[in-house]
Amino acid sequence: MSDSIATDETTRLIASNKVDGTAVYNPDGERLGSIHNFMVNKRTGTVEYAVLQFGGILGFGSDYYPLPWNTLNYDSGQGGYVVNLSRETLESAPHYQATEEPVHDIDYGRRVHSHYGVSYPY
Amino acid sequence: MSDSIATDETTRLIASNKVDGTAVYNPDGERLGSIHNFMVNKRTGTVEYAVLQFGGILGFGSDYYPLPWNTLNYDSGQGGYVVNLSRETLESAPHYQATEEPVHDIDYGRRVHSHYGVSYPY
Repeated sequence: MSDSIATDETTRLIASNKVDGTAVYNPDGERLGSIHNFMVNKRTGTVEYAVLQFGGILGFGSDYYPLPWNTLNYDSGQGGYVVNLSRETLESAPHYQATEEPVHDIDYGRRVHSHYGVSYPY
Repeated sequence: MSDSIATDETTRLIASNKVDGTAVYNPDGERLGSIHNFMVNKRTGTVEYAVLQFGGILGFGSDYYPLPWNTLNYDSGQGGYVVNLSRETLESAPHYQATEEPVHDIDYGRRVHSHYGVSYPY
């Protein structure tokens, strides 16, 4: 064990304020965007999805794309998350603009998880 | 349904960037501190604990107190979390200074949950 270990991220846990703003790449190393925030189920304390800011040019015109948590894999080499998703899959996914945030209800959660083929317990 | 609904917080979900900085009160309405961040289990996407910044004077000298997620209840009236914990319970709880963050391993998680009498699945 070294004193220089980054304790805000262990092999098990990651700090919320480290997730927000983290870059997201596809498997080819192409930067897709960054994590805007993530939505936590109040009762269970489970992250239902992380919200990717994606699209637009230099951040202008980008939209928000909720991604099921387990589509994200942290790659310490790249210093960001890698998602095994094509631009085409993302572009057809549920998304919203900052000014038109949806109600994050169970129906919306189902739509998001269904798009990515991830099971949803609700 | 109203257009003015706060969609960054539904009855089910709360946004990560809304949790950080939120005030924490005891049941008497006394302000104990605020949420610094929270630690998410990378594999399961579950919040293991929220970290309360508590103690000191006007934020100086305050320490970080990890609280199991389900000790926190959001009170929309107060605009913050209410924890049913006395100052004495908090003061004797596991805590750390910003410069001495612990390794957030399973042993630490067990200590935190055990102090508050909350079961821990690991």
